[in-house]
Amino acid sequence: MGSIVAENRKSMMLFSGRAFPELAEEIGRHLGVAPTPTDAYGFANGELFVRYKESVRGSDAFVVQSMSAPINRWMMETLIMVDALKRGSAKRITVVLPFYPYARQDKKHRGREPISARLVADLLKTAGANRILTVDLHTAQIQGFFDGPVDHLFAMDLLADYIEKKYAGRPMAVVAPDSGRVRVAERWTDRLGGYTPLAFIHKTRDPLKPNQVVANRVVGDIKDRVCLLVDDMIDTGGTICSAADLLAEGGAAEIIVAATHPILSDPATERLQKSPISEVVVTNTLPLEDYKKIDKMTVLSIAPLVARAIREVFDDGSVTTLFGGLS
Amino acid sequence: MGSIVAENRKSMMLFSGRAFPELAEEIGRHLGVAPTPTDAYGFANGELFVRYKESVRGSDAFVVQSMSAPINRWMMETLIMVDALKRGSAKRITVVLPFYPYARQDKKHRGREPISARLVADLLKTAGANRILTVDLHTAQIQGFFDGPVDHLFAMDLLADYIEKKYAGRPMAVVAPDSGRVRVAERWTDRLGGYTPLAFIHKTRDPLKPNQVVANRVVGDIKDRVCLLVDDMIDTGGTICSAADLLAEGGAAEIIVAATHPILSDPATERLQKSPISEVVVTNTLPLEDYKKIDKMTVLSIAPLVARAIREVFDDGSVTTLFGGLS
Amino acid sequence: MGSIVAENRKSMMLFSGRAFPELAEEIGRHLGVAPTPTDAYGFANGELFVRYKESVRGSDAFVVQSMSAPINRWMMETLIMVDALKRGSAKRITVVLPFYPYARQDKKHRGREPISARLVADLLKTAGANRILTVDLHTAQIQGFFDGPVDHLFAMDLLADYIEKKYAGRPMAVVAPDSGRVRVAERWTDRLGGYTPLAFIHKTRDPLKPNQVVANRVVGDIKDRVCLLVDDMIDTGGTICSAADLLAEGGAAEIIVAATHPILSDPATERLQKSPISEVVVTNTLPLEDYKKIDKMTVLSIAPLVARAIREVFDDGSVTTLFGGLS
Amino acid sequence: MGSIVAENRKSMMLFSGRAFPELAEEIGRHLGVAPTPTDAYGFANGELFVRYKESVRGSDAFVVQSMSAPINRWMMETLIMVDALKRGSAKRITVVLPFYPYARQDKKHRGREPISARLVADLLKTAGANRILTVDLHTAQIQGFFDGPVDHLFAMDLLADYIEKKYAGRPMAVVAPDSGRVRVAERWTDRLGGYTPLAFIHKTRDPLKPNQVVANRVVGDIKDRVCLLVDDMIDTGGTICSAADLLAEGGAAEIIVAATHPILSDPATERLQKSPISEVVVTNTLPLEDYKKIDKMTVLSIAPLVARAIREVFDDGSVTTLFGGLS
Amino acid sequence: MGSIVAENRKSMMLFSGRAFPELAEEIGRHLGVAPTPTDAYGFANGELFVRYKESVRGSDAFVVQSMSAPINRWMMETLIMVDALKRGSAKRITVVLPFYPYARQDKKHRGREPISARLVADLLKTAGANRILTVDLHTAQIQGFFDGPVDHLFAMDLLADYIEKKYAGRPMAVVAPDSGRVRVAERWTDRLGGYTPLAFIHKTRDPLKPNQVVANRVVGDIKDRVCLLVDDMIDTGGTICSAADLLAEGGAAEIIVAATHPILSDPATERLQKSPISEVVVTNTLPLEDYKKIDKMTVLSIAPLVARAIREVFDDGSVTTLFGGLS
Amino acid sequence: MGSIVAENRKSMMLFSGRAFPELAEEIGRHLGVAPTPTDAYGFANGELFVRYKESVRGSDAFVVQSMSAPINRWMMETLIMVDALKRGSAKRITVVLPFYPYARQDKKHRGREPISARLVADLLKTAGANRILTVDLHTAQIQGFFDGPVDHLFAMDLLADYIEKKYAGRPMAVVAPDSGRVRVAERWTDRLGGYTPLAFIHKTRDPLKPNQVVANRVVGDIKDRVCLLVDDMIDTGGTICSAADLLAEGGAAEIIVAATHPILSDPATERLQKSPISEVVVTNTLPLEDYKKIDKMTVLSIAPLVARAIREVFDDGSVTTLFGGLS
Repeated sequence: MGSIVAENRKSMMLFSGRAFPELAEEIGRHLGVAPTPTDAYGFANGELFVRYKESVRGSDAFVVQSMSAPINRWMMETLIMVDALKRGSAKRITVVLPFYPYARQDKKHRGREPISARLVADLLKTAGANRILTVDLHTAQIQGFFDGPVDHLFAMDLLADYIEKKYAGRPMAVVAPDSGRVRVAERWTDRLGGYTPLAFIHKTRDPLKPNQVVANRVVGDIKDRVCLLVDDMIDTGGTICSAADLLAEGGAAEIIVAATHPILSDPATERLQKSPISEVVVTNTLPLEDYKKIDKMTVLSIAPLVARAIREVFDDGSVTTLFGGLS
Repeated sequence: MGSIVAENRKSMMLFSGRAFPELAEEIGRHLGVAPTPTDAYGFANGELFVRYKESVRGSDAFVVQSMSAPINRWMMETLIMVDALKRGSAKRITVVLPFYPYARQDKKHRGREPISARLVADLLKTAGANRILTVDLHTAQIQGFFDGPVDHLFAMDLLADYIEKKYAGRPMAVVAPDSGRVRVAERWTDRLGGYTPLAFIHKTRDPLKPNQVVANRVVGDIKDRVCLLVDDMIDTGGTICSAADLLAEGGAAEIIVAATHPILSDPATERLQKSPISEVVVTNTLPLEDYKKIDKMTVLSIAPLVARAIREVFDDGSVTTLFGGLS
Repeated sequence: MGSIVAENRKSMMLFSGRAFPELAEEIGRHLGVAPTPTDAYGFANGELFVRYKESVRGSDAFVVQSMSAPINRWMMETLIMVDALKRGSAKRITVVLPFYPYARQDKKHRGREPISARLVADLLKTAGANRILTVDLHTAQIQGFFDGPVDHLFAMDLLADYIEKKYAGRPMAVVAPDSGRVRVAERWTDRLGGYTPLAFIHKTRDPLKPNQVVANRVVGDIKDRVCLLVDDMIDTGGTICSAADLLAEGGAAEIIVAATHPILSDPATERLQKSPISEVVVTNTLPLEDYKKIDKMTVLSIAPLVARAIREVFDDGSVTTLFGGLS
Repeated sequence: MGSIVAENRKSMMLFSGRAFPELAEEIGRHLGVAPTPTDAYGFANGELFVRYKESVRGSDAFVVQSMSAPINRWMMETLIMVDALKRGSAKRITVVLPFYPYARQDKKHRGREPISARLVADLLKTAGANRILTVDLHTAQIQGFFDGPVDHLFAMDLLADYIEKKYAGRPMAVVAPDSGRVRVAERWTDRLGGYTPLAFIHKTRDPLKPNQVVANRVVGDIKDRVCLLVDDMIDTGGTICSAADLLAEGGAAEIIVAATHPILSDPATERLQKSPISEVVVTNTLPLEDYKKIDKMTVLSIAPLVARAIREVFDDGSVTTLFGGLS
Repeated sequence: MGSIVAENRKSMMLFSGRAFPELAEEIGRHLGVAPTPTDAYGFANGELFVRYKESVRGSDAFVVQSMSAPINRWMMETLIMVDALKRGSAKRITVVLPFYPYARQDKKHRGREPISARLVADLLKTAGANRILTVDLHTAQIQGFFDGPVDHLFAMDLLADYIEKKYAGRPMAVVAPDSGRVRVAERWTDRLGGYTPLAFIHKTRDPLKPNQVVANRVVGDIKDRVCLLVDDMIDTGGTICSAADLLAEGGAAEIIVAATHPILSDPATERLQKSPISEVVVTNTLPLEDYKKIDKMTVLSIAPLVARAIREVFDDGSVTTLFGGLS
Repeated sequence: MGSIVAENRKSMMLFSGRAFPELAEEIGRHLGVAPTPTDAYGFANGELFVRYKESVRGSDAFVVQSMSAPINRWMMETLIMVDALKRGSAKRITVVLPFYPYARQDKKHRGREPISARLVADLLKTAGANRILTVDLHTAQIQGFFDGPVDHLFAMDLLADYIEKKYAGRPMAVVAPDSGRVRVAERWTDRLGGYTPLAFIHKTRDPLKPNQVVANRVVGDIKDRVCLLVDDMIDTGGTICSAADLLAEGGAAEIIVAATHPILSDPATERLQKSPISEVVVTNTLPLEDYKKIDKMTVLSIAPLVARAIREVFDDGSVTTLFGGLS
């Protein structure tokens, strides 16, 4: 009579924020589990409220939130969801962020700036998150901002499979839209193989007028090739479209874009529509309003990849083995 | 040559979020210091950016933010401002929240709910806040949610001075709009003195239909008196206006309202306008759009009180002595 | 040979402090598990020592302590018990506090005061407590003082079932002994149903002599009714007995009291004995010396409720469903 | 107008717990500062309350508490005092513990025991203590239990000066009352110089009956010498008096005792009175009731040493230089 | 479809640092599990890298590292190994340190010194260690430096069994090489039983020349006995060999040494070789180069003891029961 | 007599690790303060010891350590120095790392790797560091690994001033030695102005043989130009020298190198000597043995920059203004 012994089962539960519930549902279909029914609403002054309709005690909880606009609202909702899980005795809480918010503020460019990407990691930790699962971080160092395990998935295989199939047999070049993305573009040349050339757009600034770009040049071999502009995200589309203009001037045979995160803030859609780009391939890490789904836009679903990662995390399997991803 | 010794001066700097810059400026005028020039803007997807235009090293920093709608945006802005101060080597960071956000979610009413008011305190701490200065918390226990000093100011003297002067000589009663605010209303009867009666609105619920109010009754003596309804905040005005209706039916001579925080989410202004309430006295802890400044609305400025508290905090003086406030 | 795999069972163990071992034993009987044999004693100068006689490795540990006088001794014993469990590799530690200590110091009333109820939560966390299970907190906000799950049980159903049965058919009124408890009293009127009236005692203070009560008045309808005074605790009984005197003067048909926590510090027993109160219904969250068990005192056992909550916590069941309690 | 600059003075304030206010006052007289007026009392159930009557903002606070019986009460009072200072915006909080509580529980002797001396350090840190100042720790390793600066003072010079003067010219031996104190006794032989012999009491246990001492023997040269038994504390006096008996049997010329901390739990006084010990020299790190001040007891004041240390800490001077103490 | 439920198995994995892989392998053979294949190497500037070749998700990880020279390299390797486990989602991380590094710096001897043994505990915790398993700490208080469970094993039984067998029937004395180890030596006399005498070496310092030893004396009865010098470690062998010389002069029949940790920094081997010591019995908590394995050196394996402790920790068994060890 | 008030001066003290004391001394000469005399040595088994010879109480402490080989030794020494400062009551501790260790392990490239650059930041924080001052981080995101202010200085101006002067009037190109450094190289083209071309070395990998480079190509315009290869560090020189070979093949007029951190692990010196590089410009963030100071090596001192930054940090001045650096 010294103790009561019981079997110790583990139980996965899925939770969805309100930013993009369709993605969580799609992930859930791949996993065979529906998002837990939840009361969630905002008060008149914007304060949010969340309550789960089923017990979450002892659960291995996965909270899926797509960080689209209004991003601060969804950030706070995520923190509140995690707090409710922590206080409700969930056993382990993994926040699934297909798009990591504030990733571009990952360092101080000058003094007296925040490092908001680190702040986001600390806020999640404080609320009670034990782990993060995310896709294609703006810079991989952001993994190190979180004090705990981060499963970092890559969408490159998903995007590259599609592009290889569609553009098979045509001479290609991979182009980084600015100097900071050349390393990522190089990974694409490795993936595409066959000595695919690599180019990038060099921005020249006037040293007397800092931060003012005075000229853009294409560095690298792109003539008569299908130029694949690669980036992690498209926000307002300015960088990518001006790069496309340069490539067109430089004699590109065709210009296509591959990017994981379709933020597509206005006027991105209009810009892409008008640009010499013939196809834009993205994933659904973020929701897309209908008017953004223009003809040249191809959206591939990230849900199978995320679902398989969640399953492996739950099963203590190797995410590395399956996806070539991290850990 | 073993060390370099220098005078150690302290320096107060004021910082203003973008929710209600006029209040920070008014506080600054009372202090004799302008809010520090700051670059602050939002990216297309809602991500916020902040950079201070002057060095903040070694400063005793006071960050003023009025938590109005969109409240999650201003919450994140505040966290980011604090992060930038911490990383910019401010010596001490006090967040001045005239209205504490998420104060109504200060406990779990049922299982699997968050305690968002505690979460807010923890988020501020994590970002780097050392202290909080606030006015009329929804419940005083929220002070205990923050792991550090909280200066809790009361607006009652400000409101009561005005009301005593204007309604001098008339028989009054203090009325709590629901059972949870009776203790606060009692503090008003103590302040007004002369055995002012105390009443409240008793809501009856049907035990078979929980959360459904079936009847409201006034408990206490209000007939032929100027009835002063007191509350910490007016959000949509539903509670306060239905209380006023009951008081009118019960024979109140006149009905006035005193509340610190004018959230006034729609349709509050319309409701107040139509109600039997003759005057609503509030402070400017939150900004008011012009259409909300109806004739029966009187707005008293909280800025002198907040400015004096900041000055005392900076000078290590006693906030208690000056304001009858806390600590 | 890359790893050794074994079944992972979970094991509940019960531990009892020395303040009120009979309650822990009663809880254990309901659970079917005896408190773990423990060496516990005090040194000559009051320093306490604890050692468990059985291995606690990997256990889901529940430490039951009733915080009666000498309360600081039992507080330190609880912290030391938790430390020994943490260092002995218990897997999860839940502190079961039927009465939460220092709950009345849950905010600063004036400056330079402690918030001891928050301090208690932090001390438990520091020692190694993962969770708290408690009954009828003085204010529900105390849940938010602990950085982790708090299971907050309500004794109202236990008390109300008894009272409804015994006083069935008689007209009742629920009375709050002071303005701060009106909200709690309203919950009782909801529970009792049938439009039970609600009253409270209004204390009038002289504004020139703060903290000095100059008059008490009953606000609300109590005449010819069985008046049920409700409170969370009875300490010295002063408030409750002077409320009873007012009710008697006001024409109450009978006066009874329901309170969860019978602190009953002297001279509470004498006061209750002499008062016009005919019955006092409490629970055994705290131990009662024999001389305090006067005829008009009815003690209901909290043990079944606590035992069911512990069992649900261990089983990851829903405490909400069973008890109308929290989470 | 970008900032307000002011002189930054520092201000020392002294606070006294209620265990031994006379010592704090004596320390204060040496410093030239009186303990801050404080309201402190216990509620009927033992819960303690503390409020400072003057502002503590920005102060360099020193909280003096002598940890005598009832030790858990004074421990909680100290934690509550520190919490009130932290929430009242004291700048730095040093807890002055002339006698460190629970020092004897500084390791696990067997499994499933607490390490209460570490727990005490963590509790003080959690409440808000930045530094500790203490005298003659039971084991010096306890310094490492606190995550912050510990000023560790030695009373040996104070005690040794007295003994050297009084017993000048007589052959002495230093005796450790058990094997664990031989290192400390050796420090005394170094201090007394002149090749003073060192002895100790060897306890023999029966390996078949663990923890049962079957014989004590003096190891070392003590015959015809003034035997100085040294220890950090005298609790019930059992160890020291049985050591004295052995020394008397072994031919000691005279037996005297030097110990820093006079806990003197009953029956220590009676034992010492009856023992062959001729003089017991202690300090006043702990209060002594009158009946314990027997003729053979000499009490030296620790106040000057503590006061000088506090002054040096406040002035950022070197405690090492002055006292041969630590840091 | 509300959740996915799965069996929750636990899985032990063993990891070996590069300081002494043979010991980890031997421990693994006793457990029946091989150390996990690991890529580990140093960059040209000494920076270390570690990567596990198999998934560590959900594992109960035991990291074995013997802290031999270059000790800072192995310390950093251990921290990095723990970081990789934490980020790779190991469930629980126990660091197995047969020899705890920096144990001798367990207190400040004078001001402005570090307490490196506490620092080591904090570094391990920060990297992600949940538990420590170690053998014969220099002082048992070091257990309290770690904020979590420490399993502290004793090698005395292993060493004593060997010595009792070999030297059975001969009169023995246990000798502490200095005053600080007398308590440990006394534990040996208890273990050997039969009233074994206890002696120690008393170092006399000149009070005018602190830290300078002017004379050593044997205190206690050692003549014509087999003198067993006991210590936790032998570093350069200076203390132990000069103690042996004194014992030889004092008429010891034979001099043997028992010590758990053979650091044996040069010139320890040469000193031991030349000394009057006839046998040195140590364990393999640290690796020994071949030239240190002189004839009079006997090395007993600690691996069976450590393996059994790991197994019990994994199985939630009682380490206390099996080994007379701690917890 | 309520408090003792004193002037509050601040005092800067400089501390030097043993890796490169000449740099700390040079910094000290620029500041006008000598490094604090310190006892520092290693024990035979490699354990390190540090003690400051002067009081550090209340100091604004700057600990300078150059992280050269054996880097783990100097890392531990730094941690121990910080611990001794923390326990010695230093007021603020800034660790000055001209070269940040383990900066290249700033992310997980694959699963089950550590993020050692984050670990280093956490270890420094745990030991007690409040701030970090460093030069040219391998990736700027490392700033975000530390939970506190990081002053990040740039050596580019120092290096560029020298190069602009020496190579004035000659056509130049800036070349990144691999795709990951193109962004940094672009900053150089901005600094040099006049539309300086930008090139980089594109490594092609065989997708079937990951991590195996099969071809390197120069992308960009370098013919007949002075090619300036820029990098943050030169370790074994392999990357930089093979880049130089490609540039030579491609028709560069001259090849020079600018890099901040001269790690120069063997065989870097030999490689550089043999390469077509005509000049290598570095700083002294790391010590250089004499044999590494070959003729083509130019070493510029970083000491003036670091000294000015320390002075500004101490004075609460703006590091941004002076150096174009961060914050």
